[in-house]
Amino acid sequence: MKKLRQITVVGLGLLGSSITLAVLRTLTGVKSVGYSHRAATRRKARRLGVAERIVDDIHKAVARADMVILATPIRTFEDIFRQIADSLPAGCIVTDVGSTKQEPHRWARRILPKNVYYVGSHPIAGSEQRGVEFARDDLFDGANCILTNTSGTSSEAIRTLSKFWSALGCKVKVMRPSQHDRILADVSHLPHVAVAALINANSAEELKFSGRGFIDTSRIASGPANIWTDVLLTNSANITRGIDKMVKELHKLREAMNSGNEKSLHRLLEQARNKRKALIKHKMKTRSMA
Amino acid sequence: MKKLRQITVVGLGLLGSSITLAVLRTLTGVKSVGYSHRAATRRKARRLGVAERIVDDIHKAVARADMVILATPIRTFEDIFRQIADSLPAGCIVTDVGSTKQEPHRWARRILPKNVYYVGSHPIAGSEQRGVEFARDDLFDGANCILTNTSGTSSEAIRTLSKFWSALGCKVKVMRPSQHDRILADVSHLPHVAVAALINANSAEELKFSGRGFIDTSRIASGPANIWTDVLLTNSANITRGIDKMVKELHKLREAMNSGNEKSLHRLLEQARNKRKALIKHKMKTRSMA
Repeated sequence: MKKLRQITVVGLGLLGSSITLAVLRTLTGVKSVGYSHRAATRRKARRLGVAERIVDDIHKAVARADMVILATPIRTFEDIFRQIADSLPAGCIVTDVGSTKQEPHRWARRILPKNVYYVGSHPIAGSEQRGVEFARDDLFDGANCILTNTSGTSSEAIRTLSKFWSALGCKVKVMRPSQHDRILADVSHLPHVAVAALINANSAEELKFSGRGFIDTSRIASGPANIWTDVLLTNSANITRGIDKMVKELHKLREAMNSGNEKSLHRLLEQARNKRKALIKHKMKTRSMA
Repeated sequence: MKKLRQITVVGLGLLGSSITLAVLRTLTGVKSVGYSHRAATRRKARRLGVAERIVDDIHKAVARADMVILATPIRTFEDIFRQIADSLPAGCIVTDVGSTKQEPHRWARRILPKNVYYVGSHPIAGSEQRGVEFARDDLFDGANCILTNTSGTSSEAIRTLSKFWSALGCKVKVMRPSQHDRILADVSHLPHVAVAALINANSAEELKFSGRGFIDTSRIASGPANIWTDVLLTNSANITRGIDKMVKELHKLREAMNSGNEKSLHRLLEQARNKRKALIKHKMKTRSMA
């Protein structure tokens, strides 16, 4: 298994700077390097001390890295792969923390040199907040992290990356990018779309009457619109299927309500209640609530 | 304005027992009386001491009350109005804490004697938890409470009830039952339906991959199915309109995503984000987060 001496993170938002900070605090002997294309972000990152070194030049940032992690909006990956392709040292592991995985694998295969190893990573952590100011060394503790591989992926790189995310507190699972994108469409991307639609269906005046429940339900919609635009555009087929399933479920409830079918309505509400109960039980048991 | 010496709450779930407890702890000189048709609930209520007196007989419970508050599932109101009609003392104020208000007003007008005063109440408080075990004396602190009146409602009763809910910490607004049901359909009942549909659109296996965001988003779906069945069945026209608005918004997002219309997609997500931001600002300013 590859020995990690330097890890470079490209992009110092909430996720990226939480990685450099977690490496800095928990992985002794590993050099934590950060890069952002924004000078203001680099200044903040230096002031907050989220990495051992913040580098001004992306080529220099990756040139001696054993692992490079992209933590920028998904649709910047293609361009960043092109920028760094010639600067990556042989044997380097390249990964990212994007919420969709099929497109990144496609770009990596097309652009990255043959002597580096790409594996997709998706640590299911974060919040609706953004920016290096919110960096937390324990952001990944208890989170699920999905690694994605194809038939061509190096199993040594998978092992090294598994060990890395586990060291940050993640529970690691490995699957194909297509399976990842199908599952995440349902449990993360569709909820985001649904909550956005729910808010947009309401007037701002009426929303003032909402209670604590709505505040919690709608929280995910406060996530950065640019990040989420990229997620939706790189997983549109799966999310479309999700929207269609959801509209079908809405119509079942609508029909039960309008026909005064109390039994069917109760059953549908109880079904949702029981599924959530099972989910909470599972999360408690596996302690993967992050 | 009417002087309150005894308040009787019928139904000792989370809301009902939180009212008797709040009266007991904060309204000196007012006798707090509770009734539940379940012997086990009455025993628990006595053991937990949530009211000054727990009464076994509904007629005795209301016979000397200056105010009677129904805190049972909405569709039991009609029957309870019939049960207590002959036992209510003249001049008594009758109200309830149901989440829809048009049907209760209709039942009250038809069934209650002319010498008592019905006003609808909806304190927008509570949680997904149920039962007297969760009674909290501060449940209503900071909550909005909507009172509903018609042209025939006594304005003295409205004043007395306003003062009562304010004493429990609520911000009180008065409106027509039809307006209440329209607004609440949008900010509370539609969200419940939407989240139930979202959960039901997912498989239990896939849900295991969900993160903290989904846990928060889905929390309201853990509310009691019988309570919510009653809410939906007594406000179906408004909620149906809400579902149709929401499906329209889902289709806007679907269309923007599938046509690769980045600008439109970003605009829709940003619209939701900004509306939530304004909502949080408003809640912070008015301190009505309960």
